[in-house]
Amino acid sequence: MSGWIDEEHRGVRYGLAGVSLVEETSPFQQISVIRSERYGRGLLLDGCWMTAEHQERHYHESLVHPALCGAEAIERILVIGGGDGGTARECLRHNGVSHLDLVEIDGRVIELSREHLPGIGGSAWSDPRFHLTVGDGIAWVAEAADASYDVVLVDGSDPAGPAEGLFNRSFFEHCRRILRPGGVFATQSESPEAFRDVHIAIVKLLREVFHHADPLYGWVPMYPSGWWSWTFAALDSPRYLKARPDRAATIAGGCEIWTPRWQEGGFAAMPAFVERALQQ
Amino acid sequence: MSGWIDEEHRGVRYGLAGVSLVEETSPFQQISVIRSERYGRGLLLDGCWMTAEHQERHYHESLVHPALCGAEAIERILVIGGGDGGTARECLRHNGVSHLDLVEIDGRVIELSREHLPGIGGSAWSDPRFHLTVGDGIAWVAEAADASYDVVLVDGSDPAGPAEGLFNRSFFEHCRRILRPGGVFATQSESPEAFRDVHIAIVKLLREVFHHADPLYGWVPMYPSGWWSWTFAALDSPRYLKARPDRAATIAGGCEIWTPRWQEGGFAAMPAFVERALQQ
Repeated sequence: MSGWIDEEHRGVRYGLAGVSLVEETSPFQQISVIRSERYGRGLLLDGCWMTAEHQERHYHESLVHPALCGAEAIERILVIGGGDGGTARECLRHNGVSHLDLVEIDGRVIELSREHLPGIGGSAWSDPRFHLTVGDGIAWVAEAADASYDVVLVDGSDPAGPAEGLFNRSFFEHCRRILRPGGVFATQSESPEAFRDVHIAIVKLLREVFHHADPLYGWVPMYPSGWWSWTFAALDSPRYLKARPDRAATIAGGCEIWTPRWQEGGFAAMPAFVERALQQ
Repeated sequence: MSGWIDEEHRGVRYGLAGVSLVEETSPFQQISVIRSERYGRGLLLDGCWMTAEHQERHYHESLVHPALCGAEAIERILVIGGGDGGTARECLRHNGVSHLDLVEIDGRVIELSREHLPGIGGSAWSDPRFHLTVGDGIAWVAEAADASYDVVLVDGSDPAGPAEGLFNRSFFEHCRRILRPGGVFATQSESPEAFRDVHIAIVKLLREVFHHADPLYGWVPMYPSGWWSWTFAALDSPRYLKARPDRAATIAGGCEIWTPRWQEGGFAAMPAFVERALQQ
């Protein structure tokens, strides 16, 4: 059936013209795969846009490169969520990565992404450094050894449903505990417009749990309002703010959005109302 | 009638739940005024979202303050378009402005904005410094005296229909001619995502006509893709890049989005693909 596939959020909708390819209910959520005229194939979870073939670079480049260009070492990486494979793909473009654990709770998201959106994970799926676990990321983080990862990335959906536990103090404290010295933590941190209070709460909480935490502002056209954020955190210094030139040089040529300059802009572009809220 | 009011653009739609209040055809365009659940009353021209009461600050603060905080003097301001009054309102918050000409081609846009969206123009409509002309901005610029304005702002719709002539070399050359030394020109310059080629062409053309021209990237959730740009130009130096602290201090407290830091971020946040296109 051809028509509009929309996500509705608080009296606003964003829709793509296209056709539905898959509609199924996993033990965790409703999963939809569509083919759109504009952005190729796309994925929705519980009716919310997650990604699409020709619009996924914004999200994945923004989450990955400030963290991997800022951490002291990038030998061992943990990705929580990210079942479409895009975050892993961007991480594995960094030669310094020798082991990446991806822990996705919903095996059907992985299977349907590999079948219908194979380009998003790309070569990650067959990379020998890539280690996939279908399981609970919250339990994984709680059970992981102290100081066992250089970078921890949370690529989850909104803080409702299966992703709810990825945005609380206990989870963030475990992420801090399992980071090696000089490590960087990052999570998507919602829209300052469409999820204003949630966004501000995440940044404040990360500033309490880590010594340093800063949001980076960018764009994901298919997410509510198009205005999105990712928040980076570290213990020793805000080392995620500036990209190391050696690592940036190896990946910049393959990026569509990210550059060291773009990254600095994204960290600076905090709107006045968030700056005021964080000072309170 | 209650329902969704959508703008469709290349297989993507952005809609607000609400009701239609006015539908009429002026000599220039189709004008729609709606009341939305989420953002208050809104205006569409030829089916494209222009503004809404609770989402207009992004656009107006982004267009106005980098120009008015950068120009050497801000005594005389020209606004082409901007019939909703929001650009004039933000300009007139600067105490240094003594005369503002606003030239809007469609008198019905002004009348309907004053009637249905009075808060967007706000006190501008009754400000003694504000001089309104219903007429052709292209002709106004062609006939204006050399070096007669400190700042020229173009607040027009997409380069089709009545706004088409606001994006060509002849128009930009007149804008350059009528600027005083130390002056700043600024125009909305479309989305780098939804209007990628047009955006890049505008920036390149302004770099040919002026000695300095740089895009600032920000957000207007109701515009296609939510990712928007404004391009600033000057002859003597890129004086629009940094906000003068004295002027910034007088207006920052009343801004929702704009701060000097946000502005620097917006100028830095050029995506990789635009940076490459501008180097060609």
